[in-house]
Amino acid sequence: MTYDLIIIGGGPGGVSAGVYAARKQLKTLLITPEFGGQSIVSEGIENWIGTVKISGNDLAKNLKDHLLAYAGDIVTVQEGEYVQDIKISPMSDIGEEAKGTFLIKTDKAEYSSKAVLVATGSTRRKLDIPGAKEFDNKGLTYCASCDGPLFADQDVAVIGGGNAAFETSAQLLAYCKSVTLLNRSEEFRADEITVTKLKRNPKFKIITNVEVAEIKGDKFATGLTYKNIKTGEVDELQTPGIFVEIGLIPTTDFAKDVVELNKIGQIPVDPRNQQTNIKGLWAAGDCTDGLYHQNNIASGDAVKALEDIYVNLHTK
Amino acid sequence: MTYDLIIIGGGPGGVSAGVYAARKQLKTLLITPEFGGQSIVSEGIENWIGTVKISGNDLAKNLKDHLLAYAGDIVTVQEGEYVQDIKISPMSDIGEEAKGTFLIKTDKAEYSSKAVLVATGSTRRKLDIPGAKEFDNKGLTYCASCDGPLFADQDVAVIGGGNAAFETSAQLLAYCKSVTLLNRSEEFRADEITVTKLKRNPKFKIITNVEVAEIKGDKFATGLTYKNIKTGEVDELQTPGIFVEIGLIPTTDFAKDVVELNKIGQIPVDPRNQQTNIKGLWAAGDCTDGLYHQNNIASGDAVKALEDIYVNLHTK
Repeated sequence: MTYDLIIIGGGPGGVSAGVYAARKQLKTLLITPEFGGQSIVSEGIENWIGTVKISGNDLAKNLKDHLLAYAGDIVTVQEGEYVQDIKISPMSDIGEEAKGTFLIKTDKAEYSSKAVLVATGSTRRKLDIPGAKEFDNKGLTYCASCDGPLFADQDVAVIGGGNAAFETSAQLLAYCKSVTLLNRSEEFRADEITVTKLKRNPKFKIITNVEVAEIKGDKFATGLTYKNIKTGEVDELQTPGIFVEIGLIPTTDFAKDVVELNKIGQIPVDPRNQQTNIKGLWAAGDCTDGLYHQNNIASGDAVKALEDIYVNLHTK
Repeated sequence: MTYDLIIIGGGPGGVSAGVYAARKQLKTLLITPEFGGQSIVSEGIENWIGTVKISGNDLAKNLKDHLLAYAGDIVTVQEGEYVQDIKISPMSDIGEEAKGTFLIKTDKAEYSSKAVLVATGSTRRKLDIPGAKEFDNKGLTYCASCDGPLFADQDVAVIGGGNAAFETSAQLLAYCKSVTLLNRSEEFRADEITVTKLKRNPKFKIITNVEVAEIKGDKFATGLTYKNIKTGEVDELQTPGIFVEIGLIPTTDFAKDVVELNKIGQIPVDPRNQQTNIKGLWAAGDCTDGLYHQNNIASGDAVKALEDIYVNLHTK
């Protein structure tokens, strides 16, 4: 069978689209490795609008519950499955007047649909310096919620300067002896409320204008070296725990043969309706070139996409 | 004092902006007659993402609670107050390089700010035919949640063909003897799930391709006449209760002297960042010319606006 729509992703964007697909009675398949998106690792989300505070796990559960409550026979969910490739069916005419038919290959099966919404979000950028691979998961980590408690009562380091880096620091300060944040510049991309609050904590130190050069260690990481960008001076920091929060990579590799990507791998969209350069293919959330990325933005833009998909499937 | 930002509105858009203003430590004033926006009259909202079902009143409460939990000293809330006029201060230079200063006049006071976000939403469009004014609140009503129960066990009519008209019908079917929906065309703007579900109800009737011509009555409405658009034939429907759901008017009149409005009164915005044609003035939600209007869209777009306001106040 051919679905009306395949939604790829189970974060706030994918789920919003799924809920609206059910409302609009579009025969839909939603494919996602898991629900909740990137925030699933967060201990306490304070900006999911309408909810004072919620853990990433609870938000994931609420999203899944909402979708399943209305999925009925019309929206099928394939959880624990991920998309490897999208193709436009060779049988289909993708000219101005015709609907394209998409072939979606996952690690388990192949599906086809008239329309596709990509809402796959993004993943953490990895540190690319000597020692980073060697000590990955041996003191170097990308998830404070997961690994932080291993370093209780110790001096740890956080690399980065955005909200994620400061929120990671805040988590670690609750039980670590000290947290030293290393950032490339003097400016932080993080919200001021977070920066100001953390600066008051005597256990929190900031080193600015530095580039981390190498992760050092033996069996496990024991520290890192960093270079001052202005002076060129190299210094060392002894620490068994290094938490990296240096940005995101959009999850779009599987789609690169079918849709245009920009230099950093995002899918360019028309911000009015979330259409991509390919007729029949929409995208929303952190995988797109939208100027700002937040859970509620992904949700709202996915709803726009669904409204637009509905109009296109019914009138064109 | 001059605020960094004045947010006008307390629906999903205004509150989202307020929560982010607190996170970003922008000295902010939020002015709204009440919280919750248009959905406040809804009995059961099934598409506020992350929540299986919630009443309009409870959503309003959740939004207000979320905002107040983080407002602190940084976000001041003026509830029960509405904006009458916006002016750009004559003292300010609104040239390319300068920040405008805005003067906001309400029914109670006057405030000034460097930036303004308009998130005032929209209100119901009124029926403009003979008898409509005369029988307003005398059988003719714009709020099924408020007035529906007055017509229990009676035959009532609903005018309109969008989601609001069908949801109003669904509410009324729970306790009215019958519901007759009158719509201008054979196509409905409502979601198919709602249309299909209602059509199964033997108490529900639909009359298409008609224009309601007149509301009839004595002290109270007793019925209406309608004209078939194709044949010109005029017919009559006896009913003491007429529920009107024929669309929305953006709440933008107070801003018309300062910002561009389109033909139907919406504020045109750049959909990437919600900027209007006036430097320093942003808009989000149902009061804008966005292609689609939903609670989660208003929320996401207001978050985009706040991210953009923050960047502009700090770098320009």
